[in-house]
Amino acid sequence: MEDRFLKACRREPVDRTPVWFMRQAGRYQPEYRALRERHGILEICRAPELAAEVTRLPVEQLGVDAAILFSDIVVPLAPMGVGVEIREGVGPVVAEPVRSERAVARLRALEPAEDVPFVMEAVRELAGTLDVPLIGFSGAPFTLAAYLVEGGPSRSYARTRALMHGEPSLWWRLMGILGESVLAYLRAQVEAGAAAVQLFDSWVGNLSPDDYEAFVLPASSRILGGLADLGVPLIHFGVGTGELLPLMRDAGATVVGVDWRVPLDRAWDRLGDGVAVQGTLDPAVLLAGWKAVERGAGAVLGAAGGRPGHVFNLGHGVLPGTDPDVLRRLVDLVHERTERVGG
Amino acid sequence: MEDRFLKACRREPVDRTPVWFMRQAGRYQPEYRALRERHGILEICRAPELAAEVTRLPVEQLGVDAAILFSDIVVPLAPMGVGVEIREGVGPVVAEPVRSERAVARLRALEPAEDVPFVMEAVRELAGTLDVPLIGFSGAPFTLAAYLVEGGPSRSYARTRALMHGEPSLWWRLMGILGESVLAYLRAQVEAGAAAVQLFDSWVGNLSPDDYEAFVLPASSRILGGLADLGVPLIHFGVGTGELLPLMRDAGATVVGVDWRVPLDRAWDRLGDGVAVQGTLDPAVLLAGWKAVERGAGAVLGAAGGRPGHVFNLGHGVLPGTDPDVLRRLVDLVHERTERVGG
Repeated sequence: MEDRFLKACRREPVDRTPVWFMRQAGRYQPEYRALRERHGILEICRAPELAAEVTRLPVEQLGVDAAILFSDIVVPLAPMGVGVEIREGVGPVVAEPVRSERAVARLRALEPAEDVPFVMEAVRELAGTLDVPLIGFSGAPFTLAAYLVEGGPSRSYARTRALMHGEPSLWWRLMGILGESVLAYLRAQVEAGAAAVQLFDSWVGNLSPDDYEAFVLPASSRILGGLADLGVPLIHFGVGTGELLPLMRDAGATVVGVDWRVPLDRAWDRLGDGVAVQGTLDPAVLLAGWKAVERGAGAVLGAAGGRPGHVFNLGHGVLPGTDPDVLRRLVDLVHERTERVGG
Repeated sequence: MEDRFLKACRREPVDRTPVWFMRQAGRYQPEYRALRERHGILEICRAPELAAEVTRLPVEQLGVDAAILFSDIVVPLAPMGVGVEIREGVGPVVAEPVRSERAVARLRALEPAEDVPFVMEAVRELAGTLDVPLIGFSGAPFTLAAYLVEGGPSRSYARTRALMHGEPSLWWRLMGILGESVLAYLRAQVEAGAAAVQLFDSWVGNLSPDDYEAFVLPASSRILGGLADLGVPLIHFGVGTGELLPLMRDAGATVVGVDWRVPLDRAWDRLGDGVAVQGTLDPAVLLAGWKAVERGAGAVLGAAGGRPGHVFNLGHGVLPGTDPDVLRRLVDLVHERTERVGG
């Protein structure tokens, strides 16, 4: 029972479709908000006992089939030499944007054991005590590079797109050091006990397929390829990636995360049967009352059609105003409606 | 020669592929910036002689094959009873977001002749003096509704998505009054002399196809259908609409605008031969040096493959840092490389 999630990731038959939610720990939880009154977000990420507590909470409260390490994609950037903070209502803000050879030369590759021991400590603690698999995670090189180049979140990362076209050798130096760091970071998480990993390329959907293939795929491919020998599911997700799904699979993902813009069956048709698929319920629907949630979840399950390899998830993270009870009921609904799917 | 643009919109043979650029009048131009030091953006939109001057400038400077009326999508909102301003670096900000039956009831339908006479005056003046066709334009009901519901720009308009699912009758009242207004507004522009119109549904790419079909298509369809008797090209564009293209065509577009995320040939395959296609060059490429521009434009022309019905454009608006000379050279490049395409 407890590895329902891992089985689905491997496209094996499951007793029920597994469920977890991106950002299942966060602002929508009163307990999280209380903790955040006393601690900054990066402070929680850096304190193993707090990170573990926050990671564990939704597993206990919602009955989801997997935990995801509570962390932030900028955590590995600080030890690489980047001054970065999370600004409330904005996101990550980089003190000095990285746009020159000199700025890239100042970065140093992450050494997980020395640089972020607290992450591995939290992973070890959780892996040893949770009843469900723990998903480790990292931001992908493009998304990290985009924050570094822009200096923070952006509507469509145009400056990043301009830089990759205008200064490809600078781009590749930046992607090289990020890729090497992300690979080491994810390997270390698996070695500490993570049973799967998710590589978040949150903003890569701002690229055309040609640009993805030319400027991103080699780096993501090196990471996912470099994790293959560990034998854990490799989930790869980005927002607005309808055009990129087959390329993200080609990069080495064994589970492809899909946002709410692409119907699950359409995504799966584009991807073929060789990968598992996760996602697509619009997180905004969870703010629209139970009837809308039931309708939305039904549509996702209908599109999945009981195919092996379906991991139920939202098409992006849980939104701040979401009622925890709606999430709990949604987990139950998916479990009830998919009982004995695939035997 | 002068109706190269209109011919391409009708998928007729052209002597050269026509070119225009979304946001071809704007911040990238020193003349525009100088004007903006003395006048607010809405002030320019409301002064026919200024709007005409700004509209005309890129036609003279770049040699594009069409002019697009300089305006802002919020222009019709103020007379409908919405307090709205354009905040520098943010976008439109609505004083009181529209989220209740009461707020929707306070809106009144636009009567173009009385409410925005300055727009029709600018259109008349331009239509009588320009050497190229003038494109009229309006924001589409979804994008206008999204600004009204959120109170301003948003990353993915989640509150709007939640409202359409949670309060469909409120949603339809809002879409109804916006749709009626937009239809009247575009009809008035054509009657004043616009030779084509573009319906901008800038942010509709944040919806899934199911949601587009259920909550947007009927309103957009009523507008485009209500313009059909005028016999002018009806261009319909939104950002990130890869999954929605066939539905946007079904709404009644005769030219579908495509952003930079979807390769032009892929878009056209999805759309079929019955419509003209516009767009796809990544505006960020124009910041990356001439070689990158040449490569990018070559890829777009290659994907178009000389099919009748190609209007060369960017995949979104010209970015502020763009060198006007690059745009001028790009117009020439497209004209030179496509000479006698289609006879």
